[in-house]
Amino acid sequence: MAKLVVDVMGGDLAPQAPVQAVLDAAAKELHTEYILVGDEKKIRAVSHSFPVNVTIVHTTEQIDGTDEPVRAVRRKKNASLVIAAEMVAEGKADALLSAGNTGAIVAAGLLIIGRVPGILRPALAPVMPTFDGRGVLLLDAGATMDANEENLRQFAFMGSYYSEMILGTSRPRVGLLNVGTEAGKGNALTKATFPLLEKSNLHFVGNVEARDVLSGICDVLVCDGFAGNVVLKLAEGLGLGLASGIRSTLVSSFQTKLGALLVKPQLKHFFHRFEYSEYGGAPFLGVNGGCFKAHGSSNVRAWYVALGQAQAFVEKNLLGKLSEAFLNLEEV
Amino acid sequence: MAKLVVDVMGGDLAPQAPVQAVLDAAAKELHTEYILVGDEKKIRAVSHSFPVNVTIVHTTEQIDGTDEPVRAVRRKKNASLVIAAEMVAEGKADALLSAGNTGAIVAAGLLIIGRVPGILRPALAPVMPTFDGRGVLLLDAGATMDANEENLRQFAFMGSYYSEMILGTSRPRVGLLNVGTEAGKGNALTKATFPLLEKSNLHFVGNVEARDVLSGICDVLVCDGFAGNVVLKLAEGLGLGLASGIRSTLVSSFQTKLGALLVKPQLKHFFHRFEYSEYGGAPFLGVNGGCFKAHGSSNVRAWYVALGQAQAFVEKNLLGKLSEAFLNLEEV
Repeated sequence: MAKLVVDVMGGDLAPQAPVQAVLDAAAKELHTEYILVGDEKKIRAVSHSFPVNVTIVHTTEQIDGTDEPVRAVRRKKNASLVIAAEMVAEGKADALLSAGNTGAIVAAGLLIIGRVPGILRPALAPVMPTFDGRGVLLLDAGATMDANEENLRQFAFMGSYYSEMILGTSRPRVGLLNVGTEAGKGNALTKATFPLLEKSNLHFVGNVEARDVLSGICDVLVCDGFAGNVVLKLAEGLGLGLASGIRSTLVSSFQTKLGALLVKPQLKHFFHRFEYSEYGGAPFLGVNGGCFKAHGSSNVRAWYVALGQAQAFVEKNLLGKLSEAFLNLEEV
Repeated sequence: MAKLVVDVMGGDLAPQAPVQAVLDAAAKELHTEYILVGDEKKIRAVSHSFPVNVTIVHTTEQIDGTDEPVRAVRRKKNASLVIAAEMVAEGKADALLSAGNTGAIVAAGLLIIGRVPGILRPALAPVMPTFDGRGVLLLDAGATMDANEENLRQFAFMGSYYSEMILGTSRPRVGLLNVGTEAGKGNALTKATFPLLEKSNLHFVGNVEARDVLSGICDVLVCDGFAGNVVLKLAEGLGLGLASGIRSTLVSSFQTKLGALLVKPQLKHFFHRFEYSEYGGAPFLGVNGGCFKAHGSSNVRAWYVALGQAQAFVEKNLLGKLSEAFLNLEEV
C-alpha cells in the first residue's frame, strides 16, 4: 500500500491541477493513500468532498521559483515541499511529488531525505519526447553539474533499472551522450565513462550524438547534469519556438487559415507525441525515498501520470532493489 | 588582395558546389585569387573555362569522413586538405576553406597552420540560425572538448571580434551558455568563467539558458567544445526531424495535401530563416591563418557566402588584429 505525499503549492496550475489529479487517482486506487500539503482552504475549493484515502496537511508557506534553493529548504521549515520531504524522511510517506522550484526539490531530496547508501550522487531523470513516440529517459538533467565517470556509471545503472521496472522497457538500451559515435571520441569525462559502461552488464549501445537523441536510438541517455540540462532545455525551447512560429505562419493570411483548417487535425496528431503531459514526472534517482519532480506546467493529465509512476515506484520497491544492488557495488 | 585556397574534395556536393561557387565569386571579385585543390579532371568537368584568377592544384588523394583525423593529416601528405593547409602555413594563401571531415580540418589547422601566439586553444565558430533570423555565433562547437575558464574568456573575445568585424554586428552581445540566468549558477567551468567575462570590456549579457539560445538573446554564445557540439547537433537533428515529420504529415491524406498547397509558401518562408546556406561557413578561430569549415551539405549558395566571409577575414586583417590583441593579454 503506497503512501504518496503531494506538494500542491508548486507549478503553474497549482493547486487546482495536482488536487484534481489526486482526486481522480484516489477514486481508482482505493488502496493508495494520498496526502496533500498546502493551503487547506484553496485545496478544499477544488472539490465538495474528499475521499477517505486523501488527507490534507495545512500550510501556507511555500518555496518560490526565485528562492535560493538550499537556503529556502533550510529556513522555510513550514514550506509545503519541506513538510512533504520530512514525511518521506520519517517514513510517514513513501514518495513525494512536487512541480515547484527544481533546485529546491533537489535540495530537499539531498538534505532532508538523503542519499541511498553507496550512491555517490543522485540524478534527475525526466523522459524526453522522441520522434518515435517512445521517449528517452535522460539523466542527469541538472542535479549533478560536475559528474565523474563513476557517477555516470551509477546514473546508467539507475536509469536502466527505472526504465525497465517503471516504464516497462525490456532490456533498456543505454547510450552515452557524446560528440561522435566512435569509442575514442569525447571529452575527458565521456572517454573515461565509455569503458566502464562497455564492461558493465547493462545493454550499452555506445556513444549517442546529440542529433540522434530524439530519434529514439536509445531508451536511457547518460550525461552530466550540465549537458543534460542543456539538452532538455534546448529541445523544449526549440520545440516551443517552432510550434509558435508555425502557428503564427498558419494564421498569417486568409489563404493559410483555410489551409490550416485542412491540415490541423493531422498536425495536432503529429505534435501530440511531444506532449510532456504524457510522460509524467521526473524521478530524482539515488535519493533514499521516492521523489518526483513534475513539470512546472503540468496539467491534470501530467499529474495523473506522475502519480501512477510514483505509485509503481513504491509498489515495485525500486528503492529497495536499488539499495540492495548498491550495497555491493562490484556486482553492479 | 586575398588569396583563398579551396579544398574541393570534401562535402556532399563536392566538387561541383565549391567549384561553381568559386567561379561565381571569381567573376565578381576580380582582385581575389582562388586556388582549387582536388582532382583536376573532375574540377574541369564543372565548366568549359576558368578565369585567370582561378588556378587548380591537382591531387586525387583525400581525407574521408571515416579517417581518424590526426593520423590522416599526418600520413596523407597529398590529401587536398593537407595541401591547402600547407599553402596557408607557407604564406602561399591567406585562408583555406573545406567542407570535409571536421576533425581533420581542426587537426590540419592545429598541426599544419598552428595557433596564434597567445591563444591557448582555438575554437570552431559556426553561426546557428535563430528565430529572429539574426543567427548566433557559437563557440566552441567542438575543437576544444575540455576547456578551462581562460579558454572560454579567449573564445568570448575572438567571437566578439569576428561577429563585429565580419558579420557586421555592432557591439556584439556575448552570452555564457549555462543552466540558469543567475550569476552563481552552473558547473565549475561556468562559475569560474562568469567573473572573467563580467570584468572584461566585452558586452557581456550574462548567463544564457539553452531554451533561450535560439531566440536571439545574444550574438555570441560561449561554451566548451562538448556543450557547443551538443547544442549545434541537437538543434540540427530536432529541426530536421520536425521538418520531415511535418512534411510527411502534410502529404498523409488528400485533405492535408490540399491544405498543404495553401500553407506551403508561407511555411517555406518561415523555415527559410533556418537555412544553413545563408550563414556561410564556420571560422576556426585562434589558428594562425584563415581556416573555414563549410557545412558538409553546403550547396553553391552556402559556399558562395563562406567565400565572402573568408575574403572579409583576410581583407579586414582579422588575424593581424587578433594577434596584436593577444600579444598583450592583459589589455584584452
